[in-house]
This record gives sequence, C-alpha cells and structure tokens, in this order.
Amino acid sequence: MGLPKSLTIYEVGPREGFQIEDGPISTNDKVKLINCLSETGLTSIEVTSFVSPKWVPQMADAEEVLSKINRKQEVSYRTVYLNVKGLQRAYQNDVTLDGVLMLTASETFSKKNTNKGIDETLSAIPHWIQAYQEFKIPVDQIAVMAAFGCNYEGEINIQKVMNTIQQAIDRVEENGESIKKIKLADTMGWANPEQIKETIYTIKKKWPQMKILLHLHDTRGLGLANAYAAMQEGVDEFESAISGLGGCPFAAVKGAAGNIATEDLAFMCMEMGVNTGVDLDLLLDCARMTEGIVGHSLPGHLMRGGLFQR
Amino acid sequence: MGLPKSLTIYEVGPREGFQIEDGPISTNDKVKLINCLSETGLTSIEVTSFVSPKWVPQMADAEEVLSKINRKQEVSYRTVYLNVKGLQRAYQNDVTLDGVLMLTASETFSKKNTNKGIDETLSAIPHWIQAYQEFKIPVDQIAVMAAFGCNYEGEINIQKVMNTIQQAIDRVEENGESIKKIKLADTMGWANPEQIKETIYTIKKKWPQMKILLHLHDTRGLGLANAYAAMQEGVDEFESAISGLGGCPFAAVKGAAGNIATEDLAFMCMEMGVNTGVDLDLLLDCARMTEGIVGHSLPGHLMRGGLFQR
Repeated sequence: MGLPKSLTIYEVGPREGFQIEDGPISTNDKVKLINCLSETGLTSIEVTSFVSPKWVPQMADAEEVLSKINRKQEVSYRTVYLNVKGLQRAYQNDVTLDGVLMLTASETFSKKNTNKGIDETLSAIPHWIQAYQEFKIPVDQIAVMAAFGCNYEGEINIQKVMNTIQQAIDRVEENGESIKKIKLADTMGWANPEQIKETIYTIKKKWPQMKILLHLHDTRGLGLANAYAAMQEGVDEFESAISGLGGCPFAAVKGAAGNIATEDLAFMCMEMGVNTGVDLDLLLDCARMTEGIVGHSLPGHLMRGGLFQR
Repeated sequence: MGLPKSLTIYEVGPREGFQIEDGPISTNDKVKLINCLSETGLTSIEVTSFVSPKWVPQMADAEEVLSKINRKQEVSYRTVYLNVKGLQRAYQNDVTLDGVLMLTASETFSKKNTNKGIDETLSAIPHWIQAYQEFKIPVDQIAVMAAFGCNYEGEINIQKVMNTIQQAIDRVEENGESIKKIKLADTMGWANPEQIKETIYTIKKKWPQMKILLHLHDTRGLGLANAYAAMQEGVDEFESAISGLGGCPFAAVKGAAGNIATEDLAFMCMEMGVNTGVDLDLLLDCARMTEGIVGHSLPGHLMRGGLFQR
C-alpha cells in the first residue's frame, strides 16, 4: 500500500505538553502559543483540559485560555475531559466536542491512572453515552491508552486490544450509536514499527471502514519510525506536540522525550510528498517560542537541524 | 520483503562523535569508553582517525589510544584515513583496514569538504588503488557522502548517485579489483524513508549482489525511520554512534542531533525481533558514560526512556 496523499495532524502540545511542565506557565504564554499555532495551517489544536485544578493545577485557567485566544474559523479547538463535569465545562466553552470513550489496554495501568480496571471502564460506557446524548454528541470514537505496551505489564497482546475494542463496540451499538474512529495511544512509548503495522492491519481487517488515529510518544526514539510504519498501512491522522513537548511521566529519567514533535512529523511528510497543509517555517517559529515559554530545551529535531532554503 | 533476521552495527562514536566535541577529551576517557563498548557484543568500533593533528587536534592521540585499549578478539577496531600517509599510520597500528574509496554525491560539498570536485575524486581512484595494493588490501568498498541531500545543493538526484558509483566501479574494475559493498552516508541528515527505499531498490536492481551499509544522521529526527525503511529493503549493516554522539557541523544550530544512537537502533531491532548480538544494558552503561565524558547531554533516547525489565 502506498502512503496516504495527505495527513491530518492534531496538535496536542498546549494541553498534553504544558500539563507535564513543573514550572507555572502563564495564561498569556498559553494564549500566545495557541494563537501562533492557529496561523500555521494546523486544523486542530488541543488547548487545555477540564479537569480538577486540585489534581492538575497547570490547567486551572482552562476557561480563561479559551476566552482569550483568537479563534480561527479553520481551526478546531479541542479539550480533554475525564468526567461528565468536565464535559459540561467543555460544552459551555464552545470547543469542538468528540464523543470519545476512553479505554486502557493494560489492567495495571488502567487502575493506576484512572482508579478503574478494564471491566469497570467498559461497564461505565452506557453512563458516558447517556451524558454525550444529553449534549447531542454522537458517540463515534474509542481511544485505547497503552495500546502497544506498558511499563507495568510489558508487551500488550494485540488480541487483548482487539477484545477490549470489540466489547466497547458491542456496548456502543446496544445503545444505538456507532464507532467510526479508533485512537490508539502509545502512552508510554513502547510501540515498534512492525507492531504498529500488525496492529493496524489486524484492526483494518476486522473493521475495514474504521478510521485510525495514532497518538505516539518518542520515549525510546521510535516515534517517527512508528509514524512511518503506520502511514504505510494507510493511517492518515496523528496526534503530536509542537517541539516534542509532553515528556513521559513513566520514563526512567525525568526529561525523556515526549510526544512526537509536530514539526518533525510535518517535515517527514513534506519530504515524502505527503500533504499536511502546514507551513513549516511558521511551525518552527512556534517550536522555538515553546522552548522560550517552558525555559528549557525540548526534543524537537528540526528546530536545531534547520530547513534547507529551497 | 521481510526485515533481515540479524543486523550488524558498526560503532563510530569514539571517532566521529568525539571529533566534533569542542572540549578536550582525555586519552584515558577515550580508552575507557572503547573498552566499555568492546564488552557490549558490538563487533566493530571505529576508534580514531589518522589525520593531521593540525586540522583535527582531538585525534592527535590516535596511536596512544590504540596502544592502550584492551583489544578483544571478536571486535574489529577501525580507523579513518583520508590520504596515503594516514593509511600508512593505520597499517602500522594493527587495525582492521578496509579498501574503501571515498566519494561525494554533491559537487559543492565535495569541494568544501575535500578541496576536490567529483571528477577529480574519481580521477584519483587509481592512485588509491595502488596504495591499497601496496598494503595488500583488496579494494572492495565505495563510500558515498551526501548521498541523499546536501545543505548547499538541496536534493541529490538518485541518478547522479548511480552515475558516480558506476564511474567508480568502472575505474576499480579497470584496475583488477571488484566492489562488493557500497556505503551510503546521509552526511547532513536529509534522507527521508521513501527516498531511502527508492535508492536502495535502485542500487539492488542494478547490482543485486551488492552489500549496502548505511550511515545515518538524526539531524532532522528521521534517523530511525530511515533505518527502518532501509531494513524493509533488506539492509542489514548500519553505522551509528553511542548515545547519538556526533552532532552535525552543517546543522542550523550547534547541538543538533548527531548520528543515530547505537542503543536506540539496537532497541528498535530487539523489539522487532532482529538480532544485533548486543547487550542493551551494557550499551546503556556506555551511553551514560559517554555523557559523563563529554559533559553535556546527548540525544540518545533510550538512556532516558529506560528499558522494561522483562
């Protein structure tokens, strides 16, 4: 299969990236970066999360950020919510809402991260569907965290991932909704290219119409190799973070690489003739701005390697 | 084509990596790292270069390094030489000698880097062959620098690479020798995975028996994606540097990523079931030692991401 002709990048830096930073990041800096990203041609930016400020103080200014950014018509502004209260806050702040059900493929990580095991998470699906339906949001996406490996459980068997997805799809269909997209997250950076290909091949074989969105981390350096492998299987939607923000809280050493860097992904695509619609010079401006905001160097490569001036 | 079952890593960190470091690196530190690398299962280590200390002061201790290391039978110790005098010094110091002819695919870079254009370099081949023959070294390898792109000339057309190789092969055969291996170096970090595949496919189509060795830089973050793409085309020999040493002197910013990191490449192979024969825990010890020696952080990912303790 050839590579996709074009590819959509979902920027998650302002949310996932800033969230992990120790130092306080001012609301103005967040707004400045989001506005800069809005000019690059990106069509989706995850700007903040509606979670408890007690647990994630960095996101306490969610409403303020959303009220201050210059919204562009072509850009979808997205947020994260982990419960119905968060969904309500998101709804009130005029963001793009996805009817997404969050699952985890590792039992241990699921319990550590969400206080719920896999079965309990699956059992809560009707509750989520009801909440989404109250807001008239179609429930059409499943997100699977730790889909490729887990620091606590090691390798995650692909059949386990498939079973979890199947169970979620069954519950969704029982409630009159239909899943159209699966997001696979390599939350702890364990995927390898061959595993990516096998997983996507297996999902596509079972559900040929399913859209797949990949969320990749570069914790062990394989991020872009994994993205390339996925593109070979036809995947054309990726989440990434400007400048490679978003270090991994589960890595051996603080300061490990974070999400794959938006500008590096976009560069790889450009060089291979895959259209992303983004302006790399403007993305590099954003990447350098991000380093200035967090006050330390970030893992993105292109901002150091530089572009050839054609 | 499936991936190769096993893969050979040629470590170049102590030479290419240390060469670019500004600060002085003591002979003892070099010896310590080379001895540590010798215990990892690597079968080839490029330890120094026989060049003029006037131009490359970091390598002035070449003879001393070679006299002090603990040589292991299973390891080939290699060096770089750019003229016949260097070759003589290498010969006197009991290292593994390759009959390699160095070419450059970019005219501008060739002139800047070696003071000779492509034609002049090709014309010098008989002179090199004579020198090698005096030392009874078979001339069986061609190395092509800037084979995938150049900061001065941009994209390097694959036909230009093929023509240069063909001309070199012709001259070698006229002199009774036969090329068995081509090393392609992405000297300035411009290759992308699709270009890698196309280039290797084209070379293999023309010379099906030719071995290909890749020398990849991670300047713009595509290093391991390129390695994966090459493995898909059957390439099973790579040069890399421990901890990603070897920053690119041609990058936009000093401190750009260097060669692909040996431990990251070996990790990717291990995860995909491709045997490299190296011990990753020992390689990580070497990577951390290297950071200690150069006194600044280096780009290797695995030493920060960590290994899962299976």
